[in-house]
Amino acid sequence: MTRQAQVLAFDVFGTVVDWHGSLVRELQELAPQVDGNAFALAWRAGYQPAMQRVRSGELGWTRIDELHRIILDDLLPRFGLSHFDEAQRQHLNRAWHRLDPWPDVLEGLRRLKSRYLITPLSNGNIGLLTHMAKRAGLPWDCILSAEVFRAYKPDPATYLGVAQVFDLEPAAVMLCAAHHDDLEAARACGLQTAYIERPFEFGAGQVKDVSPQVGNDLHARDFIDLASQLGC
Amino acid sequence: MTRQAQVLAFDVFGTVVDWHGSLVRELQELAPQVDGNAFALAWRAGYQPAMQRVRSGELGWTRIDELHRIILDDLLPRFGLSHFDEAQRQHLNRAWHRLDPWPDVLEGLRRLKSRYLITPLSNGNIGLLTHMAKRAGLPWDCILSAEVFRAYKPDPATYLGVAQVFDLEPAAVMLCAAHHDDLEAARACGLQTAYIERPFEFGAGQVKDVSPQVGNDLHARDFIDLASQLGC
Repeated sequence: MTRQAQVLAFDVFGTVVDWHGSLVRELQELAPQVDGNAFALAWRAGYQPAMQRVRSGELGWTRIDELHRIILDDLLPRFGLSHFDEAQRQHLNRAWHRLDPWPDVLEGLRRLKSRYLITPLSNGNIGLLTHMAKRAGLPWDCILSAEVFRAYKPDPATYLGVAQVFDLEPAAVMLCAAHHDDLEAARACGLQTAYIERPFEFGAGQVKDVSPQVGNDLHARDFIDLASQLGC
Repeated sequence: MTRQAQVLAFDVFGTVVDWHGSLVRELQELAPQVDGNAFALAWRAGYQPAMQRVRSGELGWTRIDELHRIILDDLLPRFGLSHFDEAQRQHLNRAWHRLDPWPDVLEGLRRLKSRYLITPLSNGNIGLLTHMAKRAGLPWDCILSAEVFRAYKPDPATYLGVAQVFDLEPAAVMLCAAHHDDLEAARACGLQTAYIERPFEFGAGQVKDVSPQVGNDLHARDFIDLASQLGC
């Protein structure tokens, strides 16, 4: 069955890049007195509710850069950082453009790219994903984002949008993600799915259960394991 | 002035790839008895009128792949190729995904990429541009297309869209193209512009006047010359 996939679409935050570790690193540089772990978790925790305001129609189409900034402005006083000026806030908000990939990602993607068309499918905006890829050397064949489809995952328009962009049946696209809800929504649209273990997505203090769940076509330890399983 | 450009956006058909020579090559393989030069010119000549049907609202949003196919179906009988079956038509229509870059392009883009964010800004659809890049090795940082903005050049939404994607002023984007009308429309939106000489865009039988015109920030012989002028 997995032989028919032609396009691999990757979730990004948590699956490709270590947002927790990268945000902790940035916080450490800017404000070493702050609990970087708590700050990173709080920032990320604001993400789904912020997207929900867009999904529900309360906010018009709003990019993740703007949503991150709304959450950040709300967060700074709670961590004693109200004094951050506009330039500092802009710089910190851009930390999401500077997230580091997990150690297996570059080799894994390079191998996967030799046989498959590889693209992100992220709620991150095009600019964010492009800056991230350029900085980290992620070798995407193109950049697909919620911004292209004007809808956030798990809206079917995103998963089906990838298939439509390449004139393929949904089953010819495989979503690769470290989150079961994302994979489940993709499967409901007819995509293939691969679960990627990222036990330290939330840091070493909060190890994630990465045991296999039913329904996925593949379950991979990391991108190198995924490449091997896909014959690359 | 050119120091402030951060993003270079490239027109593709004619500027990056040699559509005429590539189509002639494909025709030669499929139907050597046909006048490939005439066929290529006729196919391309149908392109602006087809897009005009979308711009005017006569057709809803339609991708270039579909427009190319409408033109192709109309063209085949005129060249004695009515007998082409569905598979042959699909294959030939995909010739636009297999266009070859001009000889200077790979080296030029590689050099430009070291200092600038480089992206296509083409009326070609995302799938077409991605397949083309993967086959030819074009090292884009992302793929921007009329399909992202749901508008065809010269609609301002396309030129301004590039600046918006990267949260930049229009003047921080430079359009690089072999067509003065494209550059003129970009300039009207506040973008910088670079003209690229492609004297053989329409084949050796119809050499194009590539003499400088006023208004462009740069005039380059090819992408290697552009890289040198931009200090790459």
